Amino acid sequence: MTDELKKQLQFLSEVDKMKSVYRQTMLADKSREETDAEHSWHFALMAVTLFQYAGFDGVDINRVVKMALVHDLVEIYAGDTSAYDVKGYESKGKREKEAADRLFALLPSEQGAEYRSLWEEFDLMETRDAKYAAAIDRLQPFLSNYLTNGHTWVKHGVFAEQVYQRMNPVKTALPDLWEFVEFVIRDSCEKGYIKNFSAPASDN
Amino acid sequence: MTDELKKQLQFLSEVDKMKSVYRQTMLADKSREETDAEHSWHFALMAVTLFQYAGFDGVDINRVVKMALVHDLVEIYAGDTSAYDVKGYESKGKREKEAADRLFALLPSEQGAEYRSLWEEFDLMETRDAKYAAAIDRLQPFLSNYLTNGHTWVKHGVFAEQVYQRMNPVKTALPDLWEFVEFVIRDSCEKGYIKNFSAPASDN
Repeated sequence: MTDELKKQLQFLSEVDKMKSVYRQTMLADKSREETDAEHSWHFALMAVTLFQYAGFDGVDINRVVKMALVHDLVEIYAGDTSAYDVKGYESKGKREKEAADRLFALLPSEQGAEYRSLWEEFDLMETRDAKYAAAIDRLQPFLSNYLTNGHTWVKHGVFAEQVYQRMNPVKTALPDLWEFVEFVIRDSCEKGYIKNFSAPASDN
Repeated sequence: MTDELKKQLQFLSEVDKMKSVYRQTMLADKSREETDAEHSWHFALMAVTLFQYAGFDGVDINRVVKMALVHDLVEIYAGDTSAYDVKGYESKGKREKEAADRLFALLPSEQGAEYRSLWEEFDLMETRDAKYAAAIDRLQPFLSNYLTNGHTWVKHGVFAEQVYQRMNPVKTALPDLWEFVEFVIRDSCEKGYIKNFSAPASDN
């Protein structure tokens, strides 16, 4: 067996840990929180299934699916940071960079660099592929939250404007889905899953 | 919102159940069995990572990844059938066909037909894409079993020749991996994870 193949098998064994990184999102049957591995699969399948609604020309769905597969790998070492965890977000960048240095080094250098670059591109949300991917990455837990009586929103006492902000990438990346997003937020406010309150504008 | 999009969102909600279909395979950390969603993600990432070793020309990795994403969806209704469950295998075809009729009908007809056809192609193992996919689908739990002291093999009292038979697609679809497969089986026999015994040939 070549050193290259040994490294790849080592990496593929290590990433099994994605099945033990639990997210905030509940499964629709409410039996437990979902894992990063489950989220990544759901994200990939959603990206493929909703591709006809991509709001930009030239999105490469095959690259998006690859992004879905690798976009959360750094959480094996850095852990999952909730979208509404302000404190956690302060250290997220540093923690994830260190995790990437460690994880992608397991792979042969060219492949490690490819996966790392897909993750970085996803994270920057600048290319069309990354914008479409980010919108799907947000839609997936949004849908799950709605199916579980707003589990994460209730837990964190989230306000409608926070959810609107979080879901904003959908507006341009999946414009046909925006009506659905607005409906869910409105309905969740009515049902008390999301707090329907806007902080008063500052005097400054 | 169009009827088409409603159907797709309904389907994408229903497939959340893939996170509650537990397989025989243990997570590497032995905390619990893995789910179909986790297996599908791991399968897709393995297929991409090991693609350079594909034993046939012309394998379309993007189709293989799509196969990985949908290949176990029917288990939402049909349940997971262990590779070593002889009785379960008798009814597997019928149960999975009924599940496919029900599940893929949730989608707009063209998309439902596309996913169903990918699943059927995977199951038949006749095309090059399906043969490569099947080899990866078997490698993933094989690797996990080895990492968990042969969990599934020990549980079912599996013999080496059964594992060789199960892993046979790797020989042609990923020939460079065959040495690894043989090493793992031999080592697992020595460690007592797999029974090193061939049933005596029948007199007939």
